[in-house]
Amino acid sequence: MTDHKNGPWTVLDTDTKFENPWLRVEASNVLHPDGSPGTYGVVRFANMACGVLPIDEDGHTWLVGQHRFPLGVYSWELPEGGGRKDTVPETSTLRELAEETGLTAKHTAPLGRWYLSNSVTDEVAFGFLAWGLTQGEARPEPSEALQIERVPVADLLARVRSGEITDAFTHLMVMSAIDLARRGKLPDHIAKWLRDA
Amino acid sequence: MTDHKNGPWTVLDTDTKFENPWLRVEASNVLHPDGSPGTYGVVRFANMACGVLPIDEDGHTWLVGQHRFPLGVYSWELPEGGGRKDTVPETSTLRELAEETGLTAKHTAPLGRWYLSNSVTDEVAFGFLAWGLTQGEARPEPSEALQIERVPVADLLARVRSGEITDAFTHLMVMSAIDLARRGKLPDHIAKWLRDA
Repeated sequence: MTDHKNGPWTVLDTDTKFENPWLRVEASNVLHPDGSPGTYGVVRFANMACGVLPIDEDGHTWLVGQHRFPLGVYSWELPEGGGRKDTVPETSTLRELAEETGLTAKHTAPLGRWYLSNSVTDEVAFGFLAWGLTQGEARPEPSEALQIERVPVADLLARVRSGEITDAFTHLMVMSAIDLARRGKLPDHIAKWLRDA
Repeated sequence: MTDHKNGPWTVLDTDTKFENPWLRVEASNVLHPDGSPGTYGVVRFANMACGVLPIDEDGHTWLVGQHRFPLGVYSWELPEGGGRKDTVPETSTLRELAEETGLTAKHTAPLGRWYLSNSVTDEVAFGFLAWGLTQGEARPEPSEALQIERVPVADLLARVRSGEITDAFTHLMVMSAIDLARRGKLPDHIAKWLRDA
């Protein structure tokens, strides 16, 4: 590959330094915007992050608890998972919801699209609100050790605001849902659980 | 190193696959929680992400524009940068603010602490609100090609809500600040710019 531009950088060459089914690490020799030489390491993600805030008619939601290997800590989060790039994010999200909690949803609304760490990775996250829920059977992957908890939405909001929940993606979905609810952008029977807590 | 536990995983061995001044990529051979063998790749960050939402007495804030290499797109964001792990996040944040915008701040309030991508990385981000601002001279790093823009807070909120701004860290800071303002947790002369927009 010959030199090419990436915005104000000139890319001299790019090597793959590590690859597994979830990510690929690339190192490029570059000229910085000011012309000085350097390197740039990028972590490219195979999948998109998909997540969902489900709310039922009684104002409850579902949290997933798991040990997060990179941090070495236990973490409670909204249902999240990886979606293939050739699949619509909403489809992957509803599949993940069904696998982890057994829930199917009649209605969804997009909560946002976010680049999680844009100085180093190309990871993109899509969040949805889901309601009109029906409980079926969960089918979690056996290699994952997940706990599932049904909790009042008010509890989720309190645990996000206190910082007990530390997962950025969960914060993004919850805070965006609160903001939509307060601005009258959601059906009132859903908004009331987010707006008044 | 002998086998050790990381929560429900057993770690058999860990190799460093790539390292630069900003990140280290590790691959571990593991036994999953159910005992099945596998590998786990982790991206460890040398620095903490530090960011700030500055608000002046006229209800303006500052945005930083730059081309994000991993995405190949131009991105407007709140002032953000890397902070050393042996330095208090607030100190790194105020240093970054001064470098990029020339601003010093008399007052700060924490907006949150978030793990940005906890299935793969250990990156942690700390966000602050800053006010009581004095304008000095910016000293951006010459290898970075930054644009700085002073804009009404209402414009920032509109660009976050519309999805024009895609940076997760900026969304986290803005949405948390709005929520604090609406719940009466910020001084009224700052909250009013966030609450009423």
